[in-house]
Amino acid sequence: MKLGIAVVFTLMMLSGNPPSRSHASKSFNGFDLVDKTGNILRKPNDYRDSFQILGVFGVKDPIPMAPGGAQEQGMEELHYTYASPGTAEYYRKTGKFPDGAVLVKEVDTTETGRLTTGDAHWASGTKQWFVMIKDEKNRFPNNPLWAEGWGWALFKADAPDKQVATAFTKDCQGCHLPVSSTDWIYIQGYPVLSAK
Amino acid sequence: MKLGIAVVFTLMMLSGNPPSRSHASKSFNGFDLVDKTGNILRKPNDYRDSFQILGVFGVKDPIPMAPGGAQEQGMEELHYTYASPGTAEYYRKTGKFPDGAVLVKEVDTTETGRLTTGDAHWASGTKQWFVMIKDEKNRFPNNPLWAEGWGWALFKADAPDKQVATAFTKDCQGCHLPVSSTDWIYIQGYPVLSAK
Repeated sequence: MKLGIAVVFTLMMLSGNPPSRSHASKSFNGFDLVDKTGNILRKPNDYRDSFQILGVFGVKDPIPMAPGGAQEQGMEELHYTYASPGTAEYYRKTGKFPDGAVLVKEVDTTETGRLTTGDAHWASGTKQWFVMIKDEKNRFPNNPLWAEGWGWALFKADAPDKQVATAFTKDCQGCHLPVSSTDWIYIQGYPVLSAK
Repeated sequence: MKLGIAVVFTLMMLSGNPPSRSHASKSFNGFDLVDKTGNILRKPNDYRDSFQILGVFGVKDPIPMAPGGAQEQGMEELHYTYASPGTAEYYRKTGKFPDGAVLVKEVDTTETGRLTTGDAHWASGTKQWFVMIKDEKNRFPNNPLWAEGWGWALFKADAPDKQVATAFTKDCQGCHLPVSSTDWIYIQGYPVLSAK
């Protein structure tokens, strides 16, 4: 009888494992990157391997982030946007980004060359990373980097682990305002959000 | 005693499950796409959700695939290359693509617009897909679409499930010859192969 109970208990323990494991590997909690007062402490370490690409924007003559900076004529950048696992599938089903979802926009400089496909450019190095964390619950109303349903962060290549944005209104709002009606995201470049 | 055996057997069955499941979700056998004589029957269905992006080339004035076709002036394409799960990690460890690995290059037309980042372009639709399957064992020496350690395939948007390449030498070799020394892959555009 004792052995019988042990069997049942063992079965419960073991059969409970695979789903929770599989769930863990399929989800990523963006709030693991955040402290109690809403400071975004780091970007996800492993996004190139474990996140999903949403899409890439090619940008000619990019406008620098620094206020008052001049346009960089003749430059070409590639902006790669990755999302935490499950984000695209959830968005296709619901039209919304799930609470805790993380988006990483990697801003890459490029090399260019004449390849067999045409005049090509490809990523040569990363300048900076924009990170957004979806917050459906307005968790940090007093933190200037949480606004409009997201946490907003910026990491630059010279100190890639240091969050350097100071306020949504100062560092983020201006560039994202044109897409406020699509939850502040440039969804036109992310076809996987609308169809597989 | 019988119950004891049952317990041990049950434990073996159950404890065997999670690793094999997790392995299954982490690997993709490209030869599932191939028949006995080496015909590549289809492209992977779910690559946008389940494969990993290796990198994206922006291509200005792309050269059309069709022999003798003129360069498309003023056009801009984005070429997204995805790899089956585990490919990048394996390549970083060994410097090689694993047997059965699948690469999908999605060739996208673009829309362009003045965005807050600069003169941007982003994917608007897919023209065609190039598919490569790594074959370390020279499995199909008599099939003209298997050569140089890979199976080579092409699918076009007007019939996305129909493989239309006829021979490596005719449809594939010319464009890939410049990178024959890096296993025929344009690895310079795929930074995730060299570092995370």
